[in-house]
Amino acid sequence: MVYRLSAVFKGRDIISIKDLDRGEILQLFEVAETMEPLAKKGSQLLSNKIIGILFYEPSTRTRLSFDTAIRRLGGSSVGFAEPRVSSVEKGETLSDTVRVVENYVDAIVLRHPLEGAARLAAEFSAVPVINAGSGAEEHPTQALLDLYTIKREKRKIDGLNIGLIGDLRYGRTVHSLAYGLAYFDINLYLISPPLLRMRREVLEDISADVRCEESEDIRDVISKLDVLYVTRIQKERFADLSEYEAVRGSYRITLDLLRNAKSGLIILHPLPRVSEISQEVDQSRYAKYFRAVWYGLLVRMALLALILGAVR
Amino acid sequence: MVYRLSAVFKGRDIISIKDLDRGEILQLFEVAETMEPLAKKGSQLLSNKIIGILFYEPSTRTRLSFDTAIRRLGGSSVGFAEPRVSSVEKGETLSDTVRVVENYVDAIVLRHPLEGAARLAAEFSAVPVINAGSGAEEHPTQALLDLYTIKREKRKIDGLNIGLIGDLRYGRTVHSLAYGLAYFDINLYLISPPLLRMRREVLEDISADVRCEESEDIRDVISKLDVLYVTRIQKERFADLSEYEAVRGSYRITLDLLRNAKSGLIILHPLPRVSEISQEVDQSRYAKYFRAVWYGLLVRMALLALILGAVR
Amino acid sequence: MVYRLSAVFKGRDIISIKDLDRGEILQLFEVAETMEPLAKKGSQLLSNKIIGILFYEPSTRTRLSFDTAIRRLGGSSVGFAEPRVSSVEKGETLSDTVRVVENYVDAIVLRHPLEGAARLAAEFSAVPVINAGSGAEEHPTQALLDLYTIKREKRKIDGLNIGLIGDLRYGRTVHSLAYGLAYFDINLYLISPPLLRMRREVLEDISADVRCEESEDIRDVISKLDVLYVTRIQKERFADLSEYEAVRGSYRITLDLLRNAKSGLIILHPLPRVSEISQEVDQSRYAKYFRAVWYGLLVRMALLALILGAVR
Repeated sequence: MVYRLSAVFKGRDIISIKDLDRGEILQLFEVAETMEPLAKKGSQLLSNKIIGILFYEPSTRTRLSFDTAIRRLGGSSVGFAEPRVSSVEKGETLSDTVRVVENYVDAIVLRHPLEGAARLAAEFSAVPVINAGSGAEEHPTQALLDLYTIKREKRKIDGLNIGLIGDLRYGRTVHSLAYGLAYFDINLYLISPPLLRMRREVLEDISADVRCEESEDIRDVISKLDVLYVTRIQKERFADLSEYEAVRGSYRITLDLLRNAKSGLIILHPLPRVSEISQEVDQSRYAKYFRAVWYGLLVRMALLALILGAVR
Repeated sequence: MVYRLSAVFKGRDIISIKDLDRGEILQLFEVAETMEPLAKKGSQLLSNKIIGILFYEPSTRTRLSFDTAIRRLGGSSVGFAEPRVSSVEKGETLSDTVRVVENYVDAIVLRHPLEGAARLAAEFSAVPVINAGSGAEEHPTQALLDLYTIKREKRKIDGLNIGLIGDLRYGRTVHSLAYGLAYFDINLYLISPPLLRMRREVLEDISADVRCEESEDIRDVISKLDVLYVTRIQKERFADLSEYEAVRGSYRITLDLLRNAKSGLIILHPLPRVSEISQEVDQSRYAKYFRAVWYGLLVRMALLALILGAVR
Repeated sequence: MVYRLSAVFKGRDIISIKDLDRGEILQLFEVAETMEPLAKKGSQLLSNKIIGILFYEPSTRTRLSFDTAIRRLGGSSVGFAEPRVSSVEKGETLSDTVRVVENYVDAIVLRHPLEGAARLAAEFSAVPVINAGSGAEEHPTQALLDLYTIKREKRKIDGLNIGLIGDLRYGRTVHSLAYGLAYFDINLYLISPPLLRMRREVLEDISADVRCEESEDIRDVISKLDVLYVTRIQKERFADLSEYEAVRGSYRITLDLLRNAKSGLIILHPLPRVSEISQEVDQSRYAKYFRAVWYGLLVRMALLALILGAVR
């Protein structure tokens, strides 16, 4: 009996990384591997498929990543890049928009500022919905591409020491990633200012599966890490600007800091990056944040192809 | 001698529903029927054709409907979804924009806030222009999809009792629809507050062909109707807010109101819907407003294919 | 030995008209000629190629021209039409955006408000960058299409008397065109108010190659010209509004002015045109500014096909 991936993925909504299990994630990564030549030369796997890209928040990387994935698979897209050009201005509800758009497309890729929006859309939609970021909570395809980048660059995920640094409280990518990492046998180092510590509910959810250690200073743990995942600390999170000024320096990754790093350390970042990684790091062997963009394209191609039944 | 539809439609501008006659509308609907499998599986009828989608006003449904229609026919589109990203900001006239864009595309789909804009564009353009809504006056493809929805759901148009409710004065869809209905042997019930009655000139134009009855209360006519077409009443139309508050309740369609409806009644709405149809109605057998989105795709595919000479 | 154009163009950035020499420009024009049937019927020269269209400034004509060129060659595009829908709002640098987007696309077409932006992008990008206008300095594909229009309409460029009128100081198209014209044996007439004279550095750069004559009154030179290139004079350039009012009339092209023109004169304009060419001129034999839009499509198709190695 041949096991068919399409039986697992076809027609499915991808709203949260928690909707997938470890086995499914690893299967997805195997398909992503086979996408590499198609991402260079193109393919016709999704010819005659149209995907709706509904972005209620601006984004370059995620939107272009999905749009490119669709085109490299031979499909096409319709949609909007911001709510202002849509009927949202006229007061249409998300559920009504979904019930309109499902008539046009074979799947929907949705980004929305509100938590729960993608889940709501999936409930109303007759076609599969992929969450491309909703609210501060979930960004499953970002987490998948982060995991896939680790897998590709370190050849494994189990057994690694993985650090998450910066704003662990409000960043949606970091929450999805933490849940994704919980499927693997890793040590997790959480480095943040007290104000921006990982949310308690996330910590409780993952603590059964992952050894977590929290700290405030990257210098205490840098030498242990195999992976360092950097996120931006936004000024707006601090009521007191002097407090922000006090912490920002120690959450900036520089070559000087990296002198104590393992030679095999890889640095990731969900992008866009502002100043939390010094530009001098870009040319170092550690920097994998731009390489991850490529891996993200492969993961999204694999996900779209699987959900639309184009590979099995 | 074989009668060829392409001789009737190829290269034609579609600015007003009045540009078509009853026979042409029924021919278009026959072609729309043949589009149903293509709307699901795609086709190559318009491969190598490019359509310019010039939207000077935001829209999700109409823009995505045309864009999807083009892609399901194998064509592609270029254009803009709002004037701000165009040369309009630099003061370019519509006629100059048309004379630029006609060099790029095989047809133009235009939405514009000013009445007469589509007609003007058609005069300057060497390629066919389809009006996707201009000013408060005309929205011919919306009227065609409304008529086609009635035809598909009721299997006929002649002989029906059709009610239009809400803002009959300012809504462009309702004017185009009224002219379209005038080609058929129907009874027309116009239900609106006095302030928002159907424009006199429209009533005069259609009164020779259609029996019209005006009323202010839907409850007086609901039991007679085969079709109820609902439009939104906008607060901004009322100088006095208390006047708006007084009428809004009786122009809201609820399951309670529908207890007196014929069992075969169908409810249409041009969308986006705000609160003029209660959400509880969505799951009833009457609700056809989301189904109409699908029919709209078929009508637009048929129109594009005919105008570009891809079917005959 | 067969000389291959692809050896010259493939993989190259096109940032400035000065990056090309006379021979390359003429070779490009030969390829543009072969694009004419493809611009009408389409082709598959760029099938499986994706081009990133990154527009940090609004534009209809240039963006749609590139987008159409890509589609007529069978390729597809991803990108944005204004910075607001991109990560720029989040503070991402252009170099980071380029390092993201190069993972998705086979070439980048960039428009940016800052001088030097396209050059910077090209330095960071692993894929070729075409400058679609950056700052007030360069717009090489506009210059190429202007030169190609002259070549097509006058059957030569050498030996012509060419006038540039209007704002010769701030217009980026006029600078790129001046450098392009310097490759040919022409007489250049520069007609502008004193405030808006051609920049000294441009004049110095081209004066070795081109005979230049500056004047303030088009009536002094109109009878000599074979080509008149018109640009807009913007009110905002004048500190004193009365000064603007004083000059604007004499920089407006009318049929009356053209009574003294050569019968073979052609008038060009980079568009959008506001009032600097009277609409009565549009129907005259002189007007080639809308025809130039078509030639621009051919030039951009040729450039994309050459840079991506699809013709040789």
